[in-house]
This record gives sequence, C-alpha cells and structure tokens, in this order.
Amino acid sequence: MNVTIRDLAEQLNLSVATISKALTDSYEISPETKQRVSELAKKLNYSPNPYASSLRKRSSKTIAVVLPEVADSFFSLAINGIESIAHEKGYHVLIYLTHESFEREEAILKEFKSGRVDGILMSVSGETCSSNHIKEAIADGMPVVFFDRVCEDVETAKVVTDDFESSYRATSHLIRMGCKKIIYLSTSPTLSINIKRMEGYKKALADNAIRNTDAEIIPCHGDTETNYKIISDLLKGKNKPDGIIASVEKLTAPVYIACKHLGLTIPDDLKLISFTNLQTALILDPPLTTITQPALEMGKTAATILFKGIEKKNFDLSKERVILPSILAERSSTGNC
Amino acid sequence: MNVTIRDLAEQLNLSVATISKALTDSYEISPETKQRVSELAKKLNYSPNPYASSLRKRSSKTIAVVLPEVADSFFSLAINGIESIAHEKGYHVLIYLTHESFEREEAILKEFKSGRVDGILMSVSGETCSSNHIKEAIADGMPVVFFDRVCEDVETAKVVTDDFESSYRATSHLIRMGCKKIIYLSTSPTLSINIKRMEGYKKALADNAIRNTDAEIIPCHGDTETNYKIISDLLKGKNKPDGIIASVEKLTAPVYIACKHLGLTIPDDLKLISFTNLQTALILDPPLTTITQPALEMGKTAATILFKGIEKKNFDLSKERVILPSILAERSSTGNC
Repeated sequence: MNVTIRDLAEQLNLSVATISKALTDSYEISPETKQRVSELAKKLNYSPNPYASSLRKRSSKTIAVVLPEVADSFFSLAINGIESIAHEKGYHVLIYLTHESFEREEAILKEFKSGRVDGILMSVSGETCSSNHIKEAIADGMPVVFFDRVCEDVETAKVVTDDFESSYRATSHLIRMGCKKIIYLSTSPTLSINIKRMEGYKKALADNAIRNTDAEIIPCHGDTETNYKIISDLLKGKNKPDGIIASVEKLTAPVYIACKHLGLTIPDDLKLISFTNLQTALILDPPLTTITQPALEMGKTAATILFKGIEKKNFDLSKERVILPSILAERSSTGNC
Repeated sequence: MNVTIRDLAEQLNLSVATISKALTDSYEISPETKQRVSELAKKLNYSPNPYASSLRKRSSKTIAVVLPEVADSFFSLAINGIESIAHEKGYHVLIYLTHESFEREEAILKEFKSGRVDGILMSVSGETCSSNHIKEAIADGMPVVFFDRVCEDVETAKVVTDDFESSYRATSHLIRMGCKKIIYLSTSPTLSINIKRMEGYKKALADNAIRNTDAEIIPCHGDTETNYKIISDLLKGKNKPDGIIASVEKLTAPVYIACKHLGLTIPDDLKLISFTNLQTALILDPPLTTITQPALEMGKTAATILFKGIEKKNFDLSKERVILPSILAERSSTGNC
C-alpha cells in the first residue's frame, strides 16, 4: 500500500496540515518538526501524490506531444529528442497520435483544457485545415510549440527546417544529374511542409527553365496500396518521369518496388530523391539520395522552447521561430556518385 | 479561462457539493437540478479537472509504456498498437524511454508509486538483471504487463513471440542454404529474448550436427561504432563466418556496410538473416531475409490484457501468457530465392 500524508500525521501525532506544511518547507513549522517529518517520510518511502500536488500548484509536470504517427523515422527521432529534454527537466511525456485525422486532433486538444498537461508540442495532421482548436488552447493560456508541421496563422513558437530551400536544392540536383521531367510526389496539400517543398520544387524548375508547362505534382496521401498504384501507373505511362522527388519517407519504398516490378533501373531509367531519416538509405538498392531533417535536434529545440514558455511567465512564445537546416546526401539513386 | 465547478455553482446559485453530485449523477439530487447543471456545463464548455477526478476515484485514466527506445521499428509499431487500444478505452499514454539503462528504469518505476498511472506496459532494458523494482510495483497493487522483453521471475502477464522457435527456424534455414559456419550476433546477454534466441540457434546447430565445437556467439551490445568494428573485424578474420544471425534490428546495417567496405558479396560470401521489422527489408541490396515479430499485434494484445487487469478486480494477470508467432520471410540475403 502507498504511504499517505495521513499515515505520516498519525504516526507523528500531528495534523495533516502540519505535515503538508512541513513537507513544503513552510516558515510556520519549526526546523525540529520538519526534521521529524522528513525522516519518517524517507523511512516509509513516502512519495507525494502528483495529482494532489498538481491541483495545488496548477502544474502537472507533464507535457503532451501530439503528432500524426510514430512509425516514421522523423517522428521517432524527434520523440527521442523531446524525451531527453523532458527527462532533464523532470517532466513526463504523454504521446498522442492523430493518425492524420483532424477530428482526432481536435478531440485530443479539447482534453487538455482540463489541466492534464502544462504544455503541448505538436506537428499537425495532414487533414488539419483550420487552427481554431489550437488558437483556443493558446487563448486558454496553454503554451504550444509547433515542430515540423506548423500552422502559420497561429501566433506561437515554431521549429521547422528549411523546407523551401532543401526542396530547391533537391530539384536542382536532379536537373544537374540530367533529368528533364521531374515529378513531385506530394503528401497532404494543406500541410505547411508540403506547400513549402512544392514551392521550392517549382522555383528550381522555373529558374532552370526546364519547361514552359506547369510543374507536375502528383498527390499521394492515401494508404500504402493506393500510393503504390498511383506511382506504378505513373511509371507505366507513356509520359513517365525521369526524376522523382518523394516529399515524405513513406513514398520511398513504393517507388523502389514499382521500379523493380516494371523492370526499371534506378538511377538509369529513373532518378529518385526522398525526404527521409531512414537509417537504411545507405544500404538500399541502390543507395538513396536523401534530404535528411535534423529530427533529434528539432525535437530537442522545440522542447527547450516549450519549457521556457512553461517556466518563465514573461516568455513570449510567439516571437520564437527556429529554422534548422536539412542535409542533402547525394547517393547512387540520383546517378553514379 | 477554464470554467470550474465553482463557476457553475455561482451561476446557478447552488453549492459546489450539489453541482459535484449532480455531475456524478447522485441519487441525492433531483432530475430537474441535474438537468439545469448539465445544460449549463454544456453551454460553458465545462470539463472536469482530471487530477481532481483522479484523486476522488484513485484512477488517472493513464497508462505508462516503459521501453528501451522508440527509434526501432519493433517498438514504434508496438506503440501504435498500444495507443490504438488505449484510445478506444479513453486512456492516455505516457511514454518513458530507459535507453537501455537499469538505473533509469528503476527511477521511472519509482515515480509510479505516487499514483500517476493506473498500469504499466514494459519491455525491460538491456541492463536489467534484477526485477525487484518491478516486483515492488506489483506488490503495491500496480497492474504490470510485459511485452517482448520480459522478466521470467516476475509473476505477471507476458506477451512474447516464439523467440526460441523462430531462431531455430532461422538457423535451420541458413544450414539448408549451405552455411557451414554460422555466427550469432548477440544483444545484451541478460535479455529474455536474447537468451531464447541463442538457445534456438544452438539447438538447431546441434540437431544438424554442424560441428562439435561450441556455437559462436559474438556480443554486440555497444554503440553503433563499436558494433561496426566488431563485425568488420569478424569478417576480416581468417576464420570468417559464411552465415550470420543478427539478433536485433540495429545489427543489420553494420553487416551490410562492412561487407560493402570489405568487398564481400551477400549472399555469395556471407548469408544474413535478421530479427527486424524494417519496412525497407524488401528494397535493401540485396533484399533481407527477416524474422518479423508481430509488433502491432503484440502491442494491442499487451494493452488489452493490461486494461482487463485495471478494470476487473479479480482478473489474475499472473495467469496470462500469450505467445504470438514471428514470420520468417526468405529473401536474397540468404541465397537466390
């Protein structure tokens, strides 16, 4: 059984209020009494009830991480970064997965109104097209920090990578390697990261005057099977691309597998570059050219800023915007390196 | 600002106690009053404080998942499974990473004494060689369910895979493919999963009478760089193996990379089989033969059992042991399939 403050009171023949004040080092209690209480608490292995303490201090020592999924290298590395900072600070980490559903994201944020957490780190769902639920939480006094996938219209801290620039670099790299028809495989069209990456892609095409027609953006935000079919049909078509930019990790494997099934060789028939933190990029067949986000660092930075927002009353989260650069690693999937 | 029970009381000119009883559907309150309270609560968007509610009911509607790391396909898939069941049940999920440290695992469990969580799902750290911290939690009345990495001496529910049998199958497969000198790359020697996998490996060698000497087990439980050096030295040696069993996911990439650097071809010079849930196994160079654990299913099953333990007073967790089979997928890394 857990030892309660009442047990301590009974054994020492003191009131519960006195024990409570002694444990919180109140000036009303004599050093001798504090000593007696502290010794018994230690002896009986007493730990304060966190929720009682939370009610008193209006602090739960808990933060929430709201993100679309965990089975993705970027998010699992980001969680590692967040957890390492939370651990240093003595905070607990609640994980909520939206599975890309806006409805679920709204429901999750609504639960936080009740004071379960002291702050929120979030990367919005692919469906999120309104940010009222987040604005409401902030208006209620909840510190919120976005990482990676942000809502630009919400005035709070944002930790992102250089999505426009890295996509520009990726596209320019494909052009340099000789691609004439580069296609961008798009994730959810409302996502901040996707919009920026599309813009970088279009700008690089325009700057290199590859063509006069529009850039070709293929939406791939269904399930694995649907995405595979879209990619496979694309590569079977008469007008097939010679270069592909996969804007998210999960679009990588379908391209490799479709090429295998269709007898296309990467990089001879098709050059591929992916936004991914896959640790196996180096040992794929062929090794994959990647844009790698600083996932661990982004998680750490976002958590560090959130704790400033939680701990410092006057800290203005809306002034914080950190951009951490991604790295382009050239490998054989875009030509012989 | 959050609406409190006090706000409802003031607006309706009722006592806080009456509001509280009305909200919990007490028989002491008239249906008319309940109706008035419920309507105002709805109108003002009142949510009960979860910690106040937790103090009253001794339930936090929160479970903890204690695991070594999250940047591993098995664990991230298991979390998905756990989260899906917790979501259905209306529970919150706290994630704690031990980073394979026993000390950290002990510290984490100690925190739960205070009632922060209603139950624990855990996969022990690679350093864990004593289970007193877990036995203590259980003695305190905390429901605990192990998944994957278990402590056999702790009497509580365990959800595991067929580690012995799948390792036996993996070794037999390598023998069938012509390997004469098969080495087992071992993770932490105290881990239940590793012990069972080593036994399966040894038994298969013995049953096939490959040799009279001891099976060769190479410990690889350091950091990435150390593991790489061990594997690379092994493959450079005079007495190098022609078959390798990588007992955990993270030992896969070092084998591929070392072979590349040393000019060895998989599967001609070396056949490799890994315990892994890597979704890229199929597109590696060459495609990797895998033992794949039912990670999502294991997470779901463990969570389902834990909720029975939390919700049903008489449910005996110590009687629960579920073994879900792993799948051997034969691919080119062990021969031409």
